[in-house]
Amino acid sequence: MDYYSGKIDKLISELGRLPGVGRKSAQRLAFHILGMSDEAVKGLTDTILDAKQNVHCCKECFVLTDSEICPICASQGRNKRVIMVVENSRDLAAYEKTGKYDGVYHVLHGAISPMLGITPADIKLKELMVRLRQDVDEVIIATNSSVEGEATAMYISKLVRPTGIKVSRIASGIPVGGDLENIDEVTLLRALNGRVEL
Amino acid sequence: MDYYSGKIDKLISELGRLPGVGRKSAQRLAFHILGMSDEAVKGLTDTILDAKQNVHCCKECFVLTDSEICPICASQGRNKRVIMVVENSRDLAAYEKTGKYDGVYHVLHGAISPMLGITPADIKLKELMVRLRQDVDEVIIATNSSVEGEATAMYISKLVRPTGIKVSRIASGIPVGGDLENIDEVTLLRALNGRVEL
Repeated sequence: MDYYSGKIDKLISELGRLPGVGRKSAQRLAFHILGMSDEAVKGLTDTILDAKQNVHCCKECFVLTDSEICPICASQGRNKRVIMVVENSRDLAAYEKTGKYDGVYHVLHGAISPMLGITPADIKLKELMVRLRQDVDEVIIATNSSVEGEATAMYISKLVRPTGIKVSRIASGIPVGGDLENIDEVTLLRALNGRVEL
Repeated sequence: MDYYSGKIDKLISELGRLPGVGRKSAQRLAFHILGMSDEAVKGLTDTILDAKQNVHCCKECFVLTDSEICPICASQGRNKRVIMVVENSRDLAAYEKTGKYDGVYHVLHGAISPMLGITPADIKLKELMVRLRQDVDEVIIATNSSVEGEATAMYISKLVRPTGIKVSRIASGIPVGGDLENIDEVTLLRALNGRVEL
């Protein structure tokens, strides 16, 4: 669209590639950014680059963090014998927001999906099995209640059961097809309390 | 919110300050960016900085552009004797999209708003009057039909009238495809008053 000059159009296109940002929002963001002070723009891009360069997976639970071991794994107050398995860092944050879970986590970074070509080898399952060699009492599977999440839960329960460790799945109570990150805290807690052994 | 580590939280806050980006969207954007390749993130921040550094106002019409004179003002095919006055660069782009206007523009960069403390001196009005010293046949005022836009239109028409140059205002009425029953009374009355003979 040549009524915007090259660099503005490029900025709009680049912003429009972000998730949930359509052409109109991208335009609005672009002109907002062009209207910001030089320092504010520098601050924004520095923050993006700084986060990208310094955020990596926690060596224990694989949540995205900027320290070597995330604050949850490093904490003395958390019960290391209970591991909740979640699909991604946002799901972990959703459970942390409840403030009632005192175990630790394991972030898979995805769910098994033959449709998208995501196999068990593509998510942090091997790493979970390594952690289970230490003293663990229970693995709570808190993958999403989507098809992929359920399949992943089944897969994990089959993997873990031979080790003799208790495996549970957060209760349904979460609407089918819902994403953990969008669900209210009360429902999240109900699902936690109502978990059933697999 | 300490369940995200510092740099992630900072990134979310920074993104959340953009217009139309709430906390949830900011989270989604942040994790999307963290999941992008290093090159893609560098590309995004470079595009932002490049646009910010190189985009400025056209010396003629004050639209945001990356060249000294914008392509519209530089074009031989545009009628320089007709100037359409718009509030911002996006409004100019909206009219350019119609492809039927062959005059040039003047971008005010705002509208007079006592509420927001925006006075006539804060928008590019002095610059408009300077342009009107050259041969100009008509000034078309295409500010928004908001309170501020209407006030600005009145102000400009009073400024321009003594020069003897024709001043017009884009028509206000029912949008094409609009249902009468869904349109507010002020617009209905304006459409009635502005009726044209067939």
